[in-house]
Amino acid sequence: MQLFCNPPKSTGDEKVTEKEFNVEAMSIHKDAQAMLHKAKQEDIETAWDRLQNQSPQCKFGDTGICCRICVMGPCRISKKAPLGVCGADADVIVARNFGRFLCGGAAGHSDHGRDCIEALEAIVEGKTKDYTLANPEKLLAVASELGIATENRDVMEVGRDLVDVFYSDFASRKKELAFLCRVPQKRKEKWQELGITPRGVDREIAEMMHRTHMGCDNDAPNTLLHGARMCLADGWGGSMIATEISDMLFGTPTPKKSKVNLGVLKKDQVNILVHGHNPIVSEKILEAVNDPELIELARSKGAKGINLAGLCCTGNELMMRKGVPMAGNHLMTELAIVTGAVELIVVDYQCIMPSLVQIGNCYHTKMITTADKAKFTGAEHYKFTMENGSAQARAAVKLAIEGYAVRDHARVDIPIEPVDILTGFSNEAIVGALGGSLTPLIDAIKAGKIRGIVGIVGCNNPKFKQDHCNVTLARELIKKDILVLATGCVTTALGKVGLLLPEAIDQAGPGLKEICGSLGVPPVLHVGSCVDNARILQACALIANELGVDIADLPVAASSPEWYSEKAAAIGTYAVASGIYTHLGLPPNILGSEVMTNLAVKGLDDVVGACFAVEPDPVKAATLIDTRIKSKREGLGLAP
Amino acid sequence: MQLFCNPPKSTGDEKVTEKEFNVEAMSIHKDAQAMLHKAKQEDIETAWDRLQNQSPQCKFGDTGICCRICVMGPCRISKKAPLGVCGADADVIVARNFGRFLCGGAAGHSDHGRDCIEALEAIVEGKTKDYTLANPEKLLAVASELGIATENRDVMEVGRDLVDVFYSDFASRKKELAFLCRVPQKRKEKWQELGITPRGVDREIAEMMHRTHMGCDNDAPNTLLHGARMCLADGWGGSMIATEISDMLFGTPTPKKSKVNLGVLKKDQVNILVHGHNPIVSEKILEAVNDPELIELARSKGAKGINLAGLCCTGNELMMRKGVPMAGNHLMTELAIVTGAVELIVVDYQCIMPSLVQIGNCYHTKMITTADKAKFTGAEHYKFTMENGSAQARAAVKLAIEGYAVRDHARVDIPIEPVDILTGFSNEAIVGALGGSLTPLIDAIKAGKIRGIVGIVGCNNPKFKQDHCNVTLARELIKKDILVLATGCVTTALGKVGLLLPEAIDQAGPGLKEICGSLGVPPVLHVGSCVDNARILQACALIANELGVDIADLPVAASSPEWYSEKAAAIGTYAVASGIYTHLGLPPNILGSEVMTNLAVKGLDDVVGACFAVEPDPVKAATLIDTRIKSKREGLGLAP
Repeated sequence: MQLFCNPPKSTGDEKVTEKEFNVEAMSIHKDAQAMLHKAKQEDIETAWDRLQNQSPQCKFGDTGICCRICVMGPCRISKKAPLGVCGADADVIVARNFGRFLCGGAAGHSDHGRDCIEALEAIVEGKTKDYTLANPEKLLAVASELGIATENRDVMEVGRDLVDVFYSDFASRKKELAFLCRVPQKRKEKWQELGITPRGVDREIAEMMHRTHMGCDNDAPNTLLHGARMCLADGWGGSMIATEISDMLFGTPTPKKSKVNLGVLKKDQVNILVHGHNPIVSEKILEAVNDPELIELARSKGAKGINLAGLCCTGNELMMRKGVPMAGNHLMTELAIVTGAVELIVVDYQCIMPSLVQIGNCYHTKMITTADKAKFTGAEHYKFTMENGSAQARAAVKLAIEGYAVRDHARVDIPIEPVDILTGFSNEAIVGALGGSLTPLIDAIKAGKIRGIVGIVGCNNPKFKQDHCNVTLARELIKKDILVLATGCVTTALGKVGLLLPEAIDQAGPGLKEICGSLGVPPVLHVGSCVDNARILQACALIANELGVDIADLPVAASSPEWYSEKAAAIGTYAVASGIYTHLGLPPNILGSEVMTNLAVKGLDDVVGACFAVEPDPVKAATLIDTRIKSKREGLGLAP
Repeated sequence: MQLFCNPPKSTGDEKVTEKEFNVEAMSIHKDAQAMLHKAKQEDIETAWDRLQNQSPQCKFGDTGICCRICVMGPCRISKKAPLGVCGADADVIVARNFGRFLCGGAAGHSDHGRDCIEALEAIVEGKTKDYTLANPEKLLAVASELGIATENRDVMEVGRDLVDVFYSDFASRKKELAFLCRVPQKRKEKWQELGITPRGVDREIAEMMHRTHMGCDNDAPNTLLHGARMCLADGWGGSMIATEISDMLFGTPTPKKSKVNLGVLKKDQVNILVHGHNPIVSEKILEAVNDPELIELARSKGAKGINLAGLCCTGNELMMRKGVPMAGNHLMTELAIVTGAVELIVVDYQCIMPSLVQIGNCYHTKMITTADKAKFTGAEHYKFTMENGSAQARAAVKLAIEGYAVRDHARVDIPIEPVDILTGFSNEAIVGALGGSLTPLIDAIKAGKIRGIVGIVGCNNPKFKQDHCNVTLARELIKKDILVLATGCVTTALGKVGLLLPEAIDQAGPGLKEICGSLGVPPVLHVGSCVDNARILQACALIANELGVDIADLPVAASSPEWYSEKAAAIGTYAVASGIYTHLGLPPNILGSEVMTNLAVKGLDDVVGACFAVEPDPVKAATLIDTRIKSKREGLGLAP
């Protein structure tokens, strides 16, 4: 801990200390900049410092041409050594590495989906008192959509059938996933033709790991095609199941107001942050912080109350359904602790920097892990199950309250006032806002008032000025009358600059301004967490089905301007394989293979009707996306 | 092709051309040495050359401290940068990398197992005419063992129930795998206590990929424990299912004579090699080469017949059950082509060097791939299914026959006469040789005539003089009255030096010599392919159950002296987690983490009752294993 709070200085490369400390180049946000200064003063390392320590990064790894898949290696492709020990060339090595990279992402989302199935199972089997079915209507609607009889049946009985269907979507006997019933026929035929119809979710994951073993798939395009299949199993399987079940358990999101940025932390209250992705833990924490007994306990320790705020996607889940305020996105997670005002971070899994434990140790901040599959050395482990969720949540909140007593108030700095936002735009809510059908939206698209729809999704990455690209791209697109749907860490970015408010229509083009203005919604809709990109897939399918076309024919696109994670790559891949043109702000580690690079940014267009575009400049990216939307509009016989 | 046959010379490092070409240092085998000379003369690169081109290998990769799990990276741990961008330290990075390394291995074996289930399903559902149930007795025996009613039932009906059980072992709802009924109670309790009882095979694989995503498991021992769980799902699940179903489909191996080394190729016949792991393709090739019509066709092209030989584990599968001769192991696969006498290599999947296509192109040798999940750029793809296996096999053999017509006989060199071996020692065959029960074996162990049993398994790796360690270790162990069971590429190594013959008892200690001599079996038993390590697990369980002890109490060990693959690491890990002390000739890429290294070679002993030992010197390794066996014998109250 001491070591970390006074991190070792660079031994070989003095650039780190010489470098001008320019917080304006590190983030667009005032709260981030203030906390970066505070961290510097307190000698606390953040992701930006560590990136600098890691620079220059390995070119072999960066371009994907380093292979560690067997111990004849490690091998690196160069002029001197154009082949690995086994004979694999750059194309094969890049394909295998990228296949496994996608696999980590698809597995992350999908294993989260499995946890949701287990939660639903515990409820419908009557094995939990801590969790209930908040939204039986959604359960019945989804069951009916999947061909399960619902009439005159007990919802728990229907739920048991639904659990069977979902589990079987993870297994080996399905020829296609249940939610493929949502996919336009033309798209399904394309997948069939290519042999990439997603079967069982876990099967596609395990097969990718098999294919990328030494001496299996040694044909880069073939490996990439399986990557597409596996990611489709994520998007239309694991992620979609996670989203739908979360709605059943905790409610389908509806529009509601909330607040965002570090200003949501309270100087005089016990502050608890929830972080990760799966709402199953954080929903219980939310219940516990509203427990009068615990609030009284907090008061007895001198706090005015207990304040809960979210980080990343667990934050999005709570915000979308319950309006819980959001403290920050990926690169704000460390800086939230630097406020000195956080008693406790409760985490489930994914995207939780291990450094949080280390930075917490520089303050009084405790971290609680809750999933056996995501322990952190140095954190306290409170294993959450469907049977003990409420009790564990209360215990966690008590730990936070105790922490308040030892908070060093002199070190507290909450640098900003929070910004208002409007959240909760599930597809159901969007259709609701449109008066019960998609027709007004489709009419607006046909009329060119809404020229297209773009999902901006994903992360932060310290390689970019934090949220600059996320925000600039959104602003550029709405100017061009393109409706933006936001998920993941992008929601926080856009919320912090006011784009998630109805008033932001002032920044939109005339058509979008008119439509959003008349509906009273922002030109950028907060659609949810990263698994909720499944909502965008579903929305695209609904529109395509309504028009009788393929998703690839729609004037839609996706973008992840500041992505960092394997999950983001998996999302991008299922988007492309679903026919959605997808912009990335930086390339995955594939540039060492011409075959793979050309496939990604061009060849896939001929294969699946969409491809990736890589462009770090958000203004140029907006132009690329706009051009694509124009061509799709023309394809549909609409004015560009 | 031309490029490859005249490989580009080193640009930066002239050691490659200056180096003394010392074939004696590269392999212990005369056939290998002769072909290495021929390859050199013909300017053909092999794995040894490529290893040299790749040297020196990256130290970050070699010690496991390079992370490419997100695009904030790649990161490398050094004094300058002790943490990755996310904050992960060397322990976390090594654990994540090793977790995924094991995952590739477990997925390889297990996805092979799934293919076997699909094959069995096609048979019992009557969906194939090309495949039958050669061994219904084994199906009934296994079904009965797994609690499926068999009396007065049609074997196909029982088979359908068995298929259900096997599929459910790959899915998400099982709390433990079916074959855990074979595991000693004490071992199962240990797993339960540690929370590592293997559940669904695919689930454990997907969970490992999830855990190793950024921001999930950041506690190295926790990740390693899941590695153990996942590998147990491989050993007692995927691999065991593969072995048992292969026996049902193609027969349980029984002792039979065969031959081994490059001398099994025939100068005047069409030579076909089968390579990979799953017998489903190669069994059909075997049928086709015995088709009189095709033999006649071969004769019409000037050949005296059609000769089939195996490589690697597909070779082991065919040899164990049908006595098909073995041309070579991992490092012989390229050299087999260099004989100039091979018309065709038919491959399924795993451990097939991509260089085989390239080297084949330097001759008339064609390569046929058969699995959609293992295509090779430049090879011809004949997709094998349960419905078209016979027809595709005939088409493949025809292609080989056509190839004979264009063979350049002047370039043919078959450098050696084959060596006889005895193969086919399934557990059933061993019990049969013992007269129907394990009692004589257990009595011999108690009496110290057989002091212990060691499985020597795995691969070749050009970092070692080929097969030197494999062979030396086996010789040292039998000298010490330790019975050796061999699988995988080790079988070929030991066969080539005569250790798989009853006459090899002359090299054994007096006790082992007496027992094997009286039974007429070699002191080294050929137990099968790599998935057949499940046979060794089962044998250990049978002995432990007979003695009423844990597997960890037995005087047994495992060793992989020259391993190279992820599968070997997975095998080692399920061996250790099953309580079997396991020697490795070189370490996995974990040395960059003290925590992980100490756990592997020491800490695991306290946790699961066994650990790894890393020792490149086979004589020293034999001493280590002997010491362990002594202590286990003493623990059982037996003379050391």
